[in-house]
Amino acid sequence: MHAARIRLASLHDKIMSAPQAALLIKDGMTIGISGFGGAGDATAVSLALIEQARRDPLKINLITGASLGHGLDGLMAEAGLLARRMPFQGDPVLRKAINEGKVMFIDQHLSEVVEQLRGGYLPTPDIAVIEAVCITEQGHIVPTSSVGNSASLALAAKQVIVELNLASSPHFEGLHDIYQPQNRPHRGAIPVLQSNSRIGSHAIEIDPSRIAAIVISNTAEAAVPMLPPDNDTQAIANHLVRFFENEVEMGRLPRNLAPLQVGVGSIANAVMCGLIDAPFNDLVQYSEVLQDSTFDLLDAGKLKFASGCSITLSSACGERVFKNLGQYAERLVLRPQEISNHPEVIRRLGIIAINTALEFDLYGNVNSTHVGGTHMMNGIGGSGDFARNAHLSIFVTKSIAKDGKISRVVPMVSHVDHTEHDIDILVTEQGLADLRGLAPRERARIIIDHCVHPDYQEALNDYFTAACRLGGHTPHDLNQALSWHIRLNETGSMQAVR
Amino acid sequence: MHAARIRLASLHDKIMSAPQAALLIKDGMTIGISGFGGAGDATAVSLALIEQARRDPLKINLITGASLGHGLDGLMAEAGLLARRMPFQGDPVLRKAINEGKVMFIDQHLSEVVEQLRGGYLPTPDIAVIEAVCITEQGHIVPTSSVGNSASLALAAKQVIVELNLASSPHFEGLHDIYQPQNRPHRGAIPVLQSNSRIGSHAIEIDPSRIAAIVISNTAEAAVPMLPPDNDTQAIANHLVRFFENEVEMGRLPRNLAPLQVGVGSIANAVMCGLIDAPFNDLVQYSEVLQDSTFDLLDAGKLKFASGCSITLSSACGERVFKNLGQYAERLVLRPQEISNHPEVIRRLGIIAINTALEFDLYGNVNSTHVGGTHMMNGIGGSGDFARNAHLSIFVTKSIAKDGKISRVVPMVSHVDHTEHDIDILVTEQGLADLRGLAPRERARIIIDHCVHPDYQEALNDYFTAACRLGGHTPHDLNQALSWHIRLNETGSMQAVR
Repeated sequence: MHAARIRLASLHDKIMSAPQAALLIKDGMTIGISGFGGAGDATAVSLALIEQARRDPLKINLITGASLGHGLDGLMAEAGLLARRMPFQGDPVLRKAINEGKVMFIDQHLSEVVEQLRGGYLPTPDIAVIEAVCITEQGHIVPTSSVGNSASLALAAKQVIVELNLASSPHFEGLHDIYQPQNRPHRGAIPVLQSNSRIGSHAIEIDPSRIAAIVISNTAEAAVPMLPPDNDTQAIANHLVRFFENEVEMGRLPRNLAPLQVGVGSIANAVMCGLIDAPFNDLVQYSEVLQDSTFDLLDAGKLKFASGCSITLSSACGERVFKNLGQYAERLVLRPQEISNHPEVIRRLGIIAINTALEFDLYGNVNSTHVGGTHMMNGIGGSGDFARNAHLSIFVTKSIAKDGKISRVVPMVSHVDHTEHDIDILVTEQGLADLRGLAPRERARIIIDHCVHPDYQEALNDYFTAACRLGGHTPHDLNQALSWHIRLNETGSMQAVR
Repeated sequence: MHAARIRLASLHDKIMSAPQAALLIKDGMTIGISGFGGAGDATAVSLALIEQARRDPLKINLITGASLGHGLDGLMAEAGLLARRMPFQGDPVLRKAINEGKVMFIDQHLSEVVEQLRGGYLPTPDIAVIEAVCITEQGHIVPTSSVGNSASLALAAKQVIVELNLASSPHFEGLHDIYQPQNRPHRGAIPVLQSNSRIGSHAIEIDPSRIAAIVISNTAEAAVPMLPPDNDTQAIANHLVRFFENEVEMGRLPRNLAPLQVGVGSIANAVMCGLIDAPFNDLVQYSEVLQDSTFDLLDAGKLKFASGCSITLSSACGERVFKNLGQYAERLVLRPQEISNHPEVIRRLGIIAINTALEFDLYGNVNSTHVGGTHMMNGIGGSGDFARNAHLSIFVTKSIAKDGKISRVVPMVSHVDHTEHDIDILVTEQGLADLRGLAPRERARIIIDHCVHPDYQEALNDYFTAACRLGGHTPHDLNQALSWHIRLNETGSMQAVR
């Protein structure tokens, strides 16, 4: 039974049901579960664990790659299973529990989780639960649609539960490139010299004696909702394409641009889709989550190669891609998130990083995470890994939200995830602000003129003028700096009552 | 004449006076001048240029390594010479001009200036003025007490003025390790694998035909003021030593700790001095500016090796070190700031980074630069390069300033240079907060309990309690978040009137 999927015969007697395996997980344990951006999560064991917690309350500390799919983060929060959760999530139920202070959420740069684990800053996982497409002759684990932190979690954990997903395409085997940096103080360079460098192995090389259970599952890939491009996202894409064209013309970028990183979500996806009709060829991607746009560009012959740590698709795109995964084998690699997001590689390759802002301010500081400065949306994810070391660090957002009640460009952001030092280009549907080499007062001028919605332009200009009268390298009126957010809290709109 | 110092005979006829050389610099030019932290600046040509600007007004865009010594930044600002200045300064006169909006100051991560130059984000320097200890047989330039951005500026500039400083120790020759990363898209790894790795050459390998002038000078090393340790800095050092001892005991750090980076200034210097009597041996430093403490530790036999990009000493320490520089030859290297501060190397080596905060907040966000959120102090310098990728990112500050009128721990920092994601440990004379693996609400608790001055503890606790009632992952009351800064502006103290 499952001989092709469990190729080390001695492991066959480790097979058990998901509820049986879930019983290995005890109250107070630190558990690592595979999964990144909704892809590759160990669904069956997670669901069994949730059931178990409903019957008999227990709490765990959960470390994953990023967000779990199949609604697991929400179900876990609902079942009161999560004491601590890191490093990213995107679920409304879990979000609520985090913002109520019921779940301690550690929001962290995705490339650094493993360093913190290695450094002993986080407890060693008692158990890692890893979704796999198969187990090799050596007893090594071949992951499914994400690598994320799976390799590091499996290697660090005291015991490993493998969830063998029969519904996963066997073509995932060979797609992964599993690499672990050496331990300090004798660590060498991470030898990724190009987006398509292969530096590791095809499977997670654990000692098979540490596999405590194998659970057979049959879970369809989780589909993520993906909004189609609209007029605003199309305008953002157009501004960016025009900017890239100019950079090529000025000799600052080659015709095939530079390796592209694109953040998660509909806006970033739409921007990436804007490159399909743009005059750039032989593009490459060195990114985190590979979304629909990656495969649209691959299919259009515009993208030569894509490196990521996870594949997260809409149901329509997933339908097309996962059935034909073999076709993409030569043009894809999935890496651990430590490597896909590694500052060393990002800086070396000279990446163009395109991420989405929740809001940005007059001087180019970006808030990616906190609504109203207090309430967590999802997490910083990889945006900081990329923005800090990118060749070009670009943030995009629509200039307004909630029918104009919220301006995404504000006097002072209510929370800072990315400081002005890490931002080169800001884009809204209104236009593009090229902030490179500019001082704060110059940045403000260009942001007001190019990015702000007309409904807020005068007010922001007035704020800036008044702040300049008070002086300073980065002029602010502290009495008014957060007034737009306060007004939104009090009146439901950032617009001043006239 | 000067045959030992200018070993390529054909260059002898390039010798001219400083005022003659300064005449090569014209209004509107972008000029690169050597200098970092007050060390290695091209003083004679700079002074001649200032004279020239006084007689006949001109404006330049100035790029250096970091701050210039010998009061040059202030004199330049006074002479109206600076239109734009990057990437760092520390002069009261220039600071005033920046805060009045008269000089456009671009405050930037010190490792990234050269990337921006290479990327064409900054104008190509028309002229680079580089202080040298000698010119080699090949016409290559051997810098003096700092490398900073000198190599990149000299290689990029259309013309080079060499300022040959006869007062500089000939023992500087051999101390430098000049390395330039390859151009993308074919860049390899930066091969620094240990603090003492030597990967480059001893001199800046420019084509000597680009040397437009050689100016002979005789300038003493600039001395920087260095306050002796006081009770508070000693307490900070003690907290840190105790923390390191515990990390060693827990097996999280080896007995010789990890390569140390220490920020500029008296507090950081005092903290480093605290290691002299601590039970750690064979320490190594991988830092930016090497200050008095480096040589104190070398002389005490505690430090095995120090890598930096500049040597900046008090007059007493300089007296001792510069005369005996040869003694340190095997235990020192000076690198370009791109390499001393390179994220790739910092992450690989697993550095312990100790930097000084201007203020930090309840959740561990750090302000390093902006007084009252608006007025630039010096600049972010290398603190961001190190804090983001360090193995341990530590910020230190005294808990209060101005006789208690200012608390260095506030509800919300008025400006963010380092987000909570990049901060592991905070230390004041009151105590040490270990924030690793904690969620914001947990961080707040531990910061209030360990770091805040007793005079402000109750008020900060009240703020936190009230904010928690409003909810959120990172609780804040936006109406009160900046109230301490506003009160300071209005009443001269952050203390509430009772």
